Amino acid sequence: MKAARASSQAGVVVRTSDGLEFADTLAVEEPLEIRIGLPDGTNKAISITMRTPGDDAELAAGFLFTEGIITSPGQIKQISHSGPAGAGTTNNSIRIDLDGGLDLDLKRLERNFYTTSSCGVCGKTSIEALAAGVKQIESELEIDAEIIHSLPQMLRKAQAIFETTGGLHASALFNSDGTLDIVREDVGRHNALDKVIGAKFLANETPLSNSILLVSGRASFELVQKALMAGIPVLAAVGAPSSLAVELANEYGMTLAGFVRDGRFNVYCGEIRFKYD
Amino acid sequence: MKAARASSQAGVVVRTSDGLEFADTLAVEEPLEIRIGLPDGTNKAISITMRTPGDDAELAAGFLFTEGIITSPGQIKQISHSGPAGAGTTNNSIRIDLDGGLDLDLKRLERNFYTTSSCGVCGKTSIEALAAGVKQIESELEIDAEIIHSLPQMLRKAQAIFETTGGLHASALFNSDGTLDIVREDVGRHNALDKVIGAKFLANETPLSNSILLVSGRASFELVQKALMAGIPVLAAVGAPSSLAVELANEYGMTLAGFVRDGRFNVYCGEIRFKYD
Repeated sequence: MKAARASSQAGVVVRTSDGLEFADTLAVEEPLEIRIGLPDGTNKAISITMRTPGDDAELAAGFLFTEGIITSPGQIKQISHSGPAGAGTTNNSIRIDLDGGLDLDLKRLERNFYTTSSCGVCGKTSIEALAAGVKQIESELEIDAEIIHSLPQMLRKAQAIFETTGGLHASALFNSDGTLDIVREDVGRHNALDKVIGAKFLANETPLSNSILLVSGRASFELVQKALMAGIPVLAAVGAPSSLAVELANEYGMTLAGFVRDGRFNVYCGEIRFKYD
Repeated sequence: MKAARASSQAGVVVRTSDGLEFADTLAVEEPLEIRIGLPDGTNKAISITMRTPGDDAELAAGFLFTEGIITSPGQIKQISHSGPAGAGTTNNSIRIDLDGGLDLDLKRLERNFYTTSSCGVCGKTSIEALAAGVKQIESELEIDAEIIHSLPQMLRKAQAIFETTGGLHASALFNSDGTLDIVREDVGRHNALDKVIGAKFLANETPLSNSILLVSGRASFELVQKALMAGIPVLAAVGAPSSLAVELANEYGMTLAGFVRDGRFNVYCGEIRFKYD
């Protein structure tokens, strides 16, 4: 395996069903090990995720933040790529050294060891327990509902890698007037969101009380949970929401829209933030 | 949170962007804890996944099999739903009691504790290490390439829940003549595949040397890995494959087709199994 750092891989020879051969471009998928350096000098692996290389520092910081392990960028001393000894690559492991003053919830880390990156839960059976650490959305945001219709097209235009590979999820933040703030792509939709949130977290711009989040696929429990951790008041999904996504968004005061495409969308909860002409 | 066992949840009131209200049906997403009962009487949680309820036994068995923890259905003594003490539901935990003769690889279990259900790796840096336990495909299967074009429509027709919710991934096995064998749906694409493979595993029908697997979304490393564990020679994806998916399929002799839709598809490796008129 190459230690590829590119987010797309060109030149893969492919044969079409019509018998033509062409050089295709693929979305790159590689594992990233996230380690934390503890104040006592030791370090500990806390997650492995299959991700598209690029924005690894934001991904790692966003993961620690949305999982509730850290709460402010000041708790981070340093972020560095560092391969495990003897490994063939130094690019698929990233380490975040944490500040000595941080009272780390190691139980929480154990939990994160145990859970999956596509779920974020640990066998708890109430919505409150499932969403441990999530707070009610506090936001005065009101937006023109018409704006929502324009978001998917802006996202698509900004998705550089999707254009050539057709193989990436995206997350994007928009301002309340519908202008694009930030977009990130990844083979994993949770990673795309962690990259977006991590970038804002590192810039000390969370909570994102005036942002609209658009995700390219479906709205799952995990995406709602991560958005809630970042205080995002409006989540719009191009695809369908799950039952638990709606339940969680509703419980914590988030506006959730689904099937945002083809000039329509559905609002599942929090409609109060939308103004209709 | 309700202890819902249904795979869809009807009657959720939704407002469309046109101002209409209607009762929508959502794909149900709930956590499932998978525990194994060890021969010494203890039991141990090894995974939590956010899944669509239904076929939980197949999902759990498929997970243990595709993760390399068990290799034959005879190693399973019993599968039972069993909620943790004091929890509000008995349906979101499932336990597989294993046979006393089984030499369990507990290191492997530790690894599974640690990895994510959407990746299945543990910081290893070569494709062989990433795909530990995977064997070369052994299959004489040859299929008429024309058959591939017909699979997505058959999958869609068989996707009962997607029809009403628009929110589920699907995996299906087809026979070499293109007839449908089995289809399963889930909010998680890895779960849909584990359900399919688990059903065949419990029926003692693995390896699936004469089957064609169709997945509704993209082909990731993890889906290729699971299909390889089940010995499936042909994987067709409606969406794009990732770089690592192609690399893994190619290394282990699997045929991988992507973008199977609109009367066309691309072949990324293993084209030898396709016959063209």
